[in-house]
Amino acid sequence: MQSLAVRTTFSAPRAAGRVAARRSLTVRASSEPINPNIKKDVDKVVDTVFPKDLDGKPQAVYCRCWRSATFPLCNGAHVKHNQATGDNVGPLIIKASD
Amino acid sequence: MQSLAVRTTFSAPRAAGRVAARRSLTVRASSEPINPNIKKDVDKVVDTVFPKDLDGKPQAVYCRCWRSATFPLCNGAHVKHNQATGDNVGPLIIKASD
Ligand code: FES
Ligand code: FES
Repeated sequence: MQSLAVRTTFSAPRAAGRVAARRSLTVRASSEPINPNIKKDVDKVVDTVFPKDLDGKPQAVYCRCWRSATFPLCNGAHVKHNQATGDNVGPLIIKASD
Repeated sequence: MQSLAVRTTFSAPRAAGRVAARRSLTVRASSEPINPNIKKDVDKVVDTVFPKDLDGKPQAVYCRCWRSATFPLCNGAHVKHNQATGDNVGPLIIKASD
């Protein structure tokens, strides 16, 4: 995770010396990981779909929110993610025929 | 975008009154949108792939990092995202045959 340490330092003179206040907090950079926990042991999660994976079904729905418990398939977890964050992500649907 | 405002306020007495320092900064919550700018005018970005979309090619590569300039196709932008954030996301590859 990329993070950015921000330190706020303030000092003001007073009669007998100086007062200093230091606060340190960690701020996530705006560019941060989008995959919280899928296959974090691999450098890059790439999945491949073959025609046979549709298994005779008319379509298969693949996750692009990285929050599905059935990844790489979509399990609807994008709905909760979108509600919680105001995001608008959704799956990729693969159809067997036009 | 979900965000959390953090205010740091500090004041110290001095001879003639008070000194106050205020700093305000915005901290993104850990649960945040993963799509920065693709089709932000729609509630949910869902794409559908048909066999004809492969257009005779052996495979097509679809983006799951939400950073491709050719979304829904992958253009390799996941590499920069992964390097910048320590993430490990990658595309979904659809093959025409096994
Ligand atoms: S669960 Fe991830 S896109 Fe649906
Ligand atoms: S550009 Fe998004 S997964 Fe490759």
